[in-house]
Amino acid sequence: MPNLEDIRQAADGLHGRIHRTPMLESSALDEFFNAQLTLKAELFQKTGSFKVRGLLHKTLGLSPDERGRGVITVSAGNAAGALAWAARDAGVPATVVMAKTAVPAKIDAARAYGAQVELVDGDLIAAYESIRDERKLTGVHPFDDLDVITGHASLALELLADRPDLDTVLVPVGGGGLISGVALGIKLIKPAIRVIGIEPSGADVVSRSLEAGQPQKLPTAKSVADGLAAPVCGTHNFAIIQQYVDQVVRVSEDALIEATRLVMSRTKLALEPAAAAPFAALLEGKVELRGLTAAVISGGNLDVAKLKL
Amino acid sequence: MPNLEDIRQAADGLHGRIHRTPMLESSALDEFFNAQLTLKAELFQKTGSFKVRGLLHKTLGLSPDERGRGVITVSAGNAAGALAWAARDAGVPATVVMAKTAVPAKIDAARAYGAQVELVDGDLIAAYESIRDERKLTGVHPFDDLDVITGHASLALELLADRPDLDTVLVPVGGGGLISGVALGIKLIKPAIRVIGIEPSGADVVSRSLEAGQPQKLPTAKSVADGLAAPVCGTHNFAIIQQYVDQVVRVSEDALIEATRLVMSRTKLALEPAAAAPFAALLEGKVELRGLTAAVISGGNLDVAKLKL
Repeated sequence: MPNLEDIRQAADGLHGRIHRTPMLESSALDEFFNAQLTLKAELFQKTGSFKVRGLLHKTLGLSPDERGRGVITVSAGNAAGALAWAARDAGVPATVVMAKTAVPAKIDAARAYGAQVELVDGDLIAAYESIRDERKLTGVHPFDDLDVITGHASLALELLADRPDLDTVLVPVGGGGLISGVALGIKLIKPAIRVIGIEPSGADVVSRSLEAGQPQKLPTAKSVADGLAAPVCGTHNFAIIQQYVDQVVRVSEDALIEATRLVMSRTKLALEPAAAAPFAALLEGKVELRGLTAAVISGGNLDVAKLKL
Repeated sequence: MPNLEDIRQAADGLHGRIHRTPMLESSALDEFFNAQLTLKAELFQKTGSFKVRGLLHKTLGLSPDERGRGVITVSAGNAAGALAWAARDAGVPATVVMAKTAVPAKIDAARAYGAQVELVDGDLIAAYESIRDERKLTGVHPFDDLDVITGHASLALELLADRPDLDTVLVPVGGGGLISGVALGIKLIKPAIRVIGIEPSGADVVSRSLEAGQPQKLPTAKSVADGLAAPVCGTHNFAIIQQYVDQVVRVSEDALIEATRLVMSRTKLALEPAAAAPFAALLEGKVELRGLTAAVISGGNLDVAKLKL
């Protein structure tokens, strides 16, 4: 398991290549939720989501041979753009396997960053493995990878540096990539800070895995928060979540939609539904608030075509 | 006409009561437009638009008698919320006259700030004048007022303080309130900086007024940029615009819609269509860019119900 020194080195390696995203306050949200909130504005991160942290750290650590063969990943959206961007930044060719039904803006972003995009109809993972093996590419798992997790953990260092008085961190949960990194970074430094994950009821693979005591797969995972609709919980992620995450709660689709609109109208941040998960949990009273609470606004890759003007 | 000392005093009076909004950079937008842009993020201003600058300055300067009677204004939306907020801040009762067709979120905002909202079907101005006289309220014009203009001019001081190397400022134009303030502040200090206004083709009362040599009225003014759909150009505003604004250009509805989506997807700012007018002008090639160009993101009071998730 990565240690604190690994995380600090990852953060150093990312420094200057990605954004140091701000912590924002909103008196309107504090008033609405009767809470003391601080927002980690990771929607302003390169590629519009936190994913570049782990995927750039991973790419930078590849051997010359692995780089030379080019990288490949599979993604619902944000990891595709992030790997494409990270690979371009590191001078490595990238291929990304995405569902035909992915948010068009996320497909366009991966292409704009120079990746070869393979759009797939059926089993994404099978297509990814077959293309990877056929073309001898270097596979990069979008979240179930200790280097990716270590890169994501850099976010925790920033949270602690900016707001050492934190009581709780609320983290959107898909396959467990972000929350495993954040929990690891937080708990290695300040174990008293609570780390709480939020996942959609219709894509609750991490909750089910915790209940079963081992990583589970879902036959289908669907949510308005497309970024959270992972059908599997990573094994590395599971081990860290089981050890370090205080609680994972489920939220409804209605709450995700309401939270997205609420946060956008109060803060003027164009967050994607996945990033509104912490606020959906507050709307549904799923989290007991105590002191200063950080919500990770994980991304802003909204499908702007859905904004009817 | 207000002088530089008036503007500095207004800015001092507003200091600490409203936000000092940031200037933001976007490498994605710079690349897209092949330009050097800086964004004045006035969507993060109190009430979500620049309007509080002028309306709070106005309210603070009222006599005890004028305050005691309570204030009233008429507005397409943002001025209503801003006057309601400013009046509450100054401890003055407020009434706002709005069209029944105003963006629901803007109506709700005015109510939430404690104003009495009068929703009107037909002639807004006639309704405003009749309610004002009947109830003996203190009328506050949403833009055609020298104190309001002086308050708006505080934005120019911030632009110059943050980016003294500016070449051009792009300002959305409705009835002329914001641009008259910004142009006055800029030109009194650095007349070499260009101030360019942008208005919708379907609500082009300022362009028509400049062409006619005097303030005009439109029978109807309609635009997806509801914040810019003023049917009249203010007389005070006109005099300042005629003297100080370098150019006012028209943009199409299609360009306003495309610009809103483009800027939101690239910057993750939830701007309203009015605030996208500068980028609509760039999309349509209506402005010849030279050096560092500031775009005023005038507001973020989007109708979030229009976001279909």
